[in-house]
Amino acid sequence: MHSRDDVAEHGGVRSVLRTLDLLSLFTEETSQWSVRELSEASGLAKTTTLRLVSTLERSGLLWPTGSGNYAPGPGLLRWSRLAGSAWQPTPAARQVMGDLVRRCGETVNIYVRSGLHRVCVAQQEGPQNLRHVVRVGDELPLWSGAASRILLAAADDALLERVVAAAPHRTSAAELRSRIDRARADGCAVTHGERERGASGIFAPVVDEKGSVVAAIGIGGPTPRFTDDAVRRFAAHVRTAAQEVSRAGVTAHLPGRAEA
Amino acid sequence: MHSRDDVAEHGGVRSVLRTLDLLSLFTEETSQWSVRELSEASGLAKTTTLRLVSTLERSGLLWPTGSGNYAPGPGLLRWSRLAGSAWQPTPAARQVMGDLVRRCGETVNIYVRSGLHRVCVAQQEGPQNLRHVVRVGDELPLWSGAASRILLAAADDALLERVVAAAPHRTSAAELRSRIDRARADGCAVTHGERERGASGIFAPVVDEKGSVVAAIGIGGPTPRFTDDAVRRFAAHVRTAAQEVSRAGVTAHLPGRAEA
Repeated sequence: MHSRDDVAEHGGVRSVLRTLDLLSLFTEETSQWSVRELSEASGLAKTTTLRLVSTLERSGLLWPTGSGNYAPGPGLLRWSRLAGSAWQPTPAARQVMGDLVRRCGETVNIYVRSGLHRVCVAQQEGPQNLRHVVRVGDELPLWSGAASRILLAAADDALLERVVAAAPHRTSAAELRSRIDRARADGCAVTHGERERGASGIFAPVVDEKGSVVAAIGIGGPTPRFTDDAVRRFAAHVRTAAQEVSRAGVTAHLPGRAEA
Repeated sequence: MHSRDDVAEHGGVRSVLRTLDLLSLFTEETSQWSVRELSEASGLAKTTTLRLVSTLERSGLLWPTGSGNYAPGPGLLRWSRLAGSAWQPTPAARQVMGDLVRRCGETVNIYVRSGLHRVCVAQQEGPQNLRHVVRVGDELPLWSGAASRILLAAADDALLERVVAAAPHRTSAAELRSRIDRARADGCAVTHGERERGASGIFAPVVDEKGSVVAAIGIGGPTPRFTDDAVRRFAAHVRTAAQEVSRAGVTAHLPGRAEA
């Protein structure tokens, strides 16, 4: 038996997660949705969707466009400013990223782990036209990619099981663990076409003063430019950059962060 | 009597609003909070606060800084990009704002109404050092300011009652209504020190093709620069700018918006 408060509490967290999921459907490419479309895409009942959309509209996070559709609301602008200031790379980190772009000629990204994802929190674009495009704020899965192997350095078995469970193909936690261990031994991780055919990446750990991994810094680009020779050269630059950023700190909040 | 679903549903919306309220406590100036501080500032019980903070952390919207504090999370970066693209002023609107800055020498803002607030959605800063600083994304009250009188043009009595109820001093809906009517007759609203001593503003309506007000565009600055002569001159420029933006549209979502 549940008391009324228990039920409300349980439903409360669920509603918060559902509301955030609805908001996640809005992207730059698909920025307008009707309640019916949101209901279909989320799998939520239409009445539930309508109730959550109304709440989001009331909070300024969704905006009625007048044609029965909803678009991202002006309330997001405040959070935009907040995210910008909280996750602004330090000038030193920005400098290291710029140097790494110049040395490798590839796009430089910094990722952090957020739950079962890695999130790109900083980027310096490479000079070439053929690029592996990831945007700041993008959430990518942890079951693939060089940055993931770095960010999972301290992961326990339970986390690895959840990570591989999210993968579309069969992969084992033991296999992922051995790749993570290999990356730790090498001081960096190198992947080719692991999630996306033709995309390569080299990432190294940014650590806090306790040696815990707080972020992964590295480069990504098309596999044909990641020849064996280039990988050796790039890997050395990426490791150096990671050490420099570890000393300088990534953002105001990242140095000294205890690993969760 | 409520069924379990009713209770959960009711608690659900409440939890969503509480969660967003917690997130609103994070500002650029106060970007780190402990659960205890959040509980005190929000008036929520510590267990409730902890549960909502955990949900926000799980969603990447809050980030544990390792010292028991929380900071804005990397999940906000995606919303930042979304807000930026949805609320990016059209090139034409940007041009009009730039012209208005050059003609008046004051900071230009565009506001929209979101519930009981007006939100600054676009800004072009003026050239002078003494400025009235409002930032894009700031939510200001509707009971004061020239922009509010413009945005409330189509407000019914119920909305005006809610607006004046939020004001810190006693003011009547009838009084606010007469100021709104006056602004409509004049084609713009002028205020001096209404909310903040020494701050003046002149705003005019941006309308859609049906003539409904969708936004307010205008200038704000220190009252000593808003002499009678300047106000006459500025008002003419602000009205012209509003007509130009009404034709051009403010952002991708604002033209053709039916008034709620």
